[in-house]
Amino acid sequence: MEGVGVDHLAHERKKAEFDVEEMKVVWAGSRHDYELSDRIARLVASDPAFRKDNRATLSRKELFKNTLRKAAHAWKRIAELRLSEEEAKELRFYVDEPAFTDLHWGMFIPAIKGQGTDEQQQKWLPLAYKMQIIGCYAQTELGHGSNVQGLETTATFDPQTDEFVIHSPTLTSSKWWPGGLGKVSTHAVVYARLIVNGKDHGVNGFIVQLRSLDDHMPLPGITVGDIGMKFGSGAYNTMDNGVLRFDNVRIPRDQMLMRVLQVTREGKCVQSDVPRQLIYGTMVYVRQTIVEDASYALSKAVCIATRYSAVRRQFGSQAGGSETQVIDYKTQQSRLFPLLASAYAFRFVGEWLTLLYEDVTKRLAANDFSTLPEAHACTAGLKSLTTSITADGIEECRKLCGGHGYLHASGLPELFAVYIPACTYEGDNVVLLLQVARFLMKTVAQLPSGKKPVGTTAYLGRVQYLLECKSDVQNADDWLKPAVVLEAFEARAARMCVARAQALSKFSNPEEGFAELSADLAEASVAHCQLIVVSKFIEKVQQDIPGNGVKKQLEILCYIYALHILHKHLGDFLSTACITPKQASLANDQLRSLYSKVRPNAIALVDSFNYTDHFLGSILGRYDGNVYPKLYEEAWKDPLNDSVVPDGYHEYIRPILKQQLRNSRL
Amino acid sequence: MEGVGVDHLAHERKKAEFDVEEMKVVWAGSRHDYELSDRIARLVASDPAFRKDNRATLSRKELFKNTLRKAAHAWKRIAELRLSEEEAKELRFYVDEPAFTDLHWGMFIPAIKGQGTDEQQQKWLPLAYKMQIIGCYAQTELGHGSNVQGLETTATFDPQTDEFVIHSPTLTSSKWWPGGLGKVSTHAVVYARLIVNGKDHGVNGFIVQLRSLDDHMPLPGITVGDIGMKFGSGAYNTMDNGVLRFDNVRIPRDQMLMRVLQVTREGKCVQSDVPRQLIYGTMVYVRQTIVEDASYALSKAVCIATRYSAVRRQFGSQAGGSETQVIDYKTQQSRLFPLLASAYAFRFVGEWLTLLYEDVTKRLAANDFSTLPEAHACTAGLKSLTTSITADGIEECRKLCGGHGYLHASGLPELFAVYIPACTYEGDNVVLLLQVARFLMKTVAQLPSGKKPVGTTAYLGRVQYLLECKSDVQNADDWLKPAVVLEAFEARAARMCVARAQALSKFSNPEEGFAELSADLAEASVAHCQLIVVSKFIEKVQQDIPGNGVKKQLEILCYIYALHILHKHLGDFLSTACITPKQASLANDQLRSLYSKVRPNAIALVDSFNYTDHFLGSILGRYDGNVYPKLYEEAWKDPLNDSVVPDGYHEYIRPILKQQLRNSRL
Ligand SMILES: Cc1cc2nc3c(=O)[nH]c(=O)nc-3n(C[C@H](O)[C@H](O)[C@H](O)COP(=O)(O)OP(=O)(O)OC[C@H]3O[C@@H](n4cnc5c(N)ncnc54)[C@H](O)[C@@H]3O)c2cc1C
Ligand SMILES: Cc1cc2nc3c(=O)[nH]c(=O)nc-3n(C[C@H](O)[C@H](O)[C@H](O)COP(=O)(O)OP(=O)(O)OC[C@H]3O[C@@H](n4cnc5c(N)ncnc54)[C@H](O)[C@@H]3O)c2cc1C
Repeated sequence: MEGVGVDHLAHERKKAEFDVEEMKVVWAGSRHDYELSDRIARLVASDPAFRKDNRATLSRKELFKNTLRKAAHAWKRIAELRLSEEEAKELRFYVDEPAFTDLHWGMFIPAIKGQGTDEQQQKWLPLAYKMQIIGCYAQTELGHGSNVQGLETTATFDPQTDEFVIHSPTLTSSKWWPGGLGKVSTHAVVYARLIVNGKDHGVNGFIVQLRSLDDHMPLPGITVGDIGMKFGSGAYNTMDNGVLRFDNVRIPRDQMLMRVLQVTREGKCVQSDVPRQLIYGTMVYVRQTIVEDASYALSKAVCIATRYSAVRRQFGSQAGGSETQVIDYKTQQSRLFPLLASAYAFRFVGEWLTLLYEDVTKRLAANDFSTLPEAHACTAGLKSLTTSITADGIEECRKLCGGHGYLHASGLPELFAVYIPACTYEGDNVVLLLQVARFLMKTVAQLPSGKKPVGTTAYLGRVQYLLECKSDVQNADDWLKPAVVLEAFEARAARMCVARAQALSKFSNPEEGFAELSADLAEASVAHCQLIVVSKFIEKVQQDIPGNGVKKQLEILCYIYALHILHKHLGDFLSTACITPKQASLANDQLRSLYSKVRPNAIALVDSFNYTDHFLGSILGRYDGNVYPKLYEEAWKDPLNDSVVPDGYHEYIRPILKQQLRNSRL
Repeated sequence: MEGVGVDHLAHERKKAEFDVEEMKVVWAGSRHDYELSDRIARLVASDPAFRKDNRATLSRKELFKNTLRKAAHAWKRIAELRLSEEEAKELRFYVDEPAFTDLHWGMFIPAIKGQGTDEQQQKWLPLAYKMQIIGCYAQTELGHGSNVQGLETTATFDPQTDEFVIHSPTLTSSKWWPGGLGKVSTHAVVYARLIVNGKDHGVNGFIVQLRSLDDHMPLPGITVGDIGMKFGSGAYNTMDNGVLRFDNVRIPRDQMLMRVLQVTREGKCVQSDVPRQLIYGTMVYVRQTIVEDASYALSKAVCIATRYSAVRRQFGSQAGGSETQVIDYKTQQSRLFPLLASAYAFRFVGEWLTLLYEDVTKRLAANDFSTLPEAHACTAGLKSLTTSITADGIEECRKLCGGHGYLHASGLPELFAVYIPACTYEGDNVVLLLQVARFLMKTVAQLPSGKKPVGTTAYLGRVQYLLECKSDVQNADDWLKPAVVLEAFEARAARMCVARAQALSKFSNPEEGFAELSADLAEASVAHCQLIVVSKFIEKVQQDIPGNGVKKQLEILCYIYALHILHKHLGDFLSTACITPKQASLANDQLRSLYSKVRPNAIALVDSFNYTDHFLGSILGRYDGNVYPKLYEEAWKDPLNDSVVPDGYHEYIRPILKQQLRNSRL
């Protein structure tokens, strides 16, 4: 994307066997999206106010203030340039720094939209859109995260004053983690147990003002602060994840989000005719964006590791020639290229999820809830799968860069630190896999009754066939047939599901059985989710894709994605006899040959992400490959290099050298 | 180890079915070692000068100065208390902060010991022991790490002055990474190409003074500084990893380390009668300490995650009772207990490595090099295996703690950040696996000639049997027989080695074959190394182990270790037909039942590590389990909480809220 000066990777770029410009469009999703993101990315990259390379050396306070500055600057630019909502979102994305705005736009507003009545939306959304109020999403407590139903904060209806009294009855009921809460938000959607007439009606959302709009001081009865440093330097420490306690704070009755459940003036709880399932629509939406984010984070890491692997040379110089680029080592390829393929795979499954979400929304509007459980299980599973692989993948990319990957300047440490909570928030990944497993077991249990599984579970409708089929792979090239690959993955997932269901049926108490077998059940969920990703990738490459060689490259990546999973989870495939050891070995041969095919295109495939050097934030991943001089320059900027003789020399080093501390037996 | 106040984990400790005090002795290695470490750990923990909970909020400069202060304080205490060398080492260990002293004691001194002549040792070692000079180990350059033979720094002999001229001819020849170099070391062992009479004699070590002993200024011709921030906050940023360039720096001829190769006054290169292999002895030593460190790092993480998993409750409250401790979830157990078992496994294999090192040293002294290649391959492989599993295991422990694991206060982020470079330094883990593979392929190739494989490869001597044997497991309990488990692991490793050797033999050019199959070869190395760990664990539990129930617990852990690997690498076992799918499924059943057996002992098994709260550095891992009040207290200490209204409110938040930046289309 950059364009001046030498290009140390030019020889690599020349090797590409496909049209990179067209691939950029494929990656972006459409020409419109490509142009939009390209324009906004450059806008951010060229604005010195959005500089982000200094985050690691700022103190927590400086770091946080710096983030506030950027958020205000972004807001100002959005206004000055009269950006559309779509453009504004893109700009926040490329600023690439966790900030209170993420929660305001990503959770506070959607919560009001999803759970507020029409009047509530009319009252609160305009304020939120204009940022006359800033909101966060206060669900998790010190004692409860995964188990939302166990939250302890109470909202007790007081019929005398027509108010709710929000209260934190215990230490563990303190709200804990909400982003934007600690220092910035003026409002929050607070989740609390609704108590009416002494009766507990479970957890509901309430809009609560936290701080004065005049002077930003917490309102009476509210204790609020930041929960302290998190993983890494820079990274998520730009965010004011907060702690919040209520001492009998009163809010008007109409600040309970009442789209589904209403409390009347008289203190009656009335279920509205809006179905409870609506809430799942929002979850499908949020998790789809998480899958999308996974593909961005993983592709960033892969871009850095791929470029650096082409720059880095180590060993194997023959006859005075230059040494081998480490990207040419098969071990390097076998670690890197599956991640490259995964980045593309996640991008496409994320794209497909937006279609799924549209479909769900349409059906909900028409009161059709038939596909909702399947869509919910599917997004939960894909959130879990893609975030787990991405988190591990970023760290693997760091290792692929050898020692230099450990430098903050490689960009990978901060990328890792900022990414990993995605495995935990919006549903702990293991808890999600167990939800998927429950859905799968239910689906299998209902098969005999003739109930047809829908959507991504449709293959279970062919379970008889899938239990019996035998792969007819005879040579390595058979593994390049979509139907062959798909069937192997379908058979594996189906057989694992059925085997788990049979094991469960041996328990007299199904809940006990589920608990006892939960680790095995989670593995079946993984198999199911990997099948989804494989099948959506195959669907993608079966479409018409313009651009010289583009489709071919995607096919290669698609098979790398599938066959590396087959290799990694070989135990599943062999223990269920979906394939034979001989066929597995052929798959492995094919995989090696696919690595060779992708090799000359590797740089072009990461160029296709179209990331600016600003967005990548990595010296190792620089577009021009000019790694060493820039690493060297960067080193001298560390504050430790301000003086040649370090602060502390006279007090702590000299006395050792001059034997002023000696008196030992050593 | 702590003893006052409430103990929230008392009910867990009561469940233990073994003698914890005896297990502490087993973990420490001997009663002497237990008492030593216990005494020194308490000494450090009770000294406020060694406080380490504030590292995350210090700026780089403060952090570094703080480390200098601690190092000086440690040196002073060592002197005041007249500690022995053994005690001093233990004290530095419990200070638990990377510092220049690590390299001084751990690399600089051993390099001189290993590569210096007797005279050189007599001259330099006393200075180093007294710390009248401080040294580091300057090998890696910007352009070369793994490929030591490719280093570019030159040391050219000048016969006129009887000196070597040390020079950095290129940017990439800049020394880069050496710990202690950036700001502290007065001396370094510098690795450079020896050039005599225009002829390149390869890489050798030279003692070079870097800084004046008067004022600590770099000597003429020397450019030296810190390379900047590394992964995470706190963590390895306490260390001054450095950059170093030489502009024709002259040192006397006798500062080349000449134990193996000598340069005479006349400029002749003379090989001494000391064998070159000596150097492998040092590598065996250093890698053995790395394996030991792996067990400490992993056990710390496991201790934190296990205690917190017993404190944390989520879901499943029945009839108003308390919720389920997350440690009771089988998914949690299947992630946590294998890591607990691995910590013990690594501890014992590390212990065995010290014996191996003693044996190697004895043989070297007697000019017996027969076991050296095997010992070298074995330590290289174990270094790779244990550090990889530990790095991933720490991050898994963090995830096991849910959201709170992401807080710096959990201790896990810093533990991870400080640990992971162990996968890269002292040999990149993948490069090491390939070295092991080379050795294994050579061993297999020599079998037909009748050459008996020694040590950890002895099983390959029974390759005929191992290629044919069939596991006779009939029920889950058969998997509790040492011979059965061992044979499965031996058969797997042997079959993988032989299969790789056969695949290699199909290539006309063996080097090309090795390159092409390297990813598969690395897998064979892993199988071999896992076998070593399993076999050493089995040997350990077959010894006499005193203490009520202690041996029983270790047996359980041993089988968990073996069977979880069998499950994780099932593809290996099935594709080589070492076991059948049915037997695999029985192993899995056994594994689940072992988890139930370890469950009541889990807390006691991590108490057995005998770690102080200071050493653990984790609120989640506190001995007393008093997690929530302490997390809450800790949060308020963050500098962001110094003021209720954050710095930046007036400039950056208020203008947004008050619409002073608005002008957009939104
Ligand atoms: C960076 C970050 C930002 C966040 N932002 C927000 C925010 O803006 N607003 C907000 O409200 N919250 C936020 N959170 C909180 C987040 O949503 C929770 O941390 C998350 O829901 C996980 O819950 P937990 O921490 O209670 O994990 P726990 O449930 O305590 O998990 C601990 C362990 O128990 C296991 N476990 C739990 N239940 C089960 C079960 N039933 N079966 C098997 N295993 C189980 C888990 O797998 C895990 O290994 C944030 C968290 C982070 C880290
Ligand atoms: C915290 C830290 C402290 C350190 N301290 C010191 C110190 O005190 N003194 C010192 O001298 N050095 C030190 N080092 C440097 C360290 O020893 C090197 O980083 C290490 O040897 C790895 O080499 P590299 O960085 O060149 O990795 P590279 O070799 O560049 O590795 C990059 C990638 O290439 C792959 N690769 C390389 N060669 C091959 C091959 N032949 N076949 C297949 N794949 C290959 C690797 O697997 C890796 O994925 C330190 C490093 C760190 C991170």
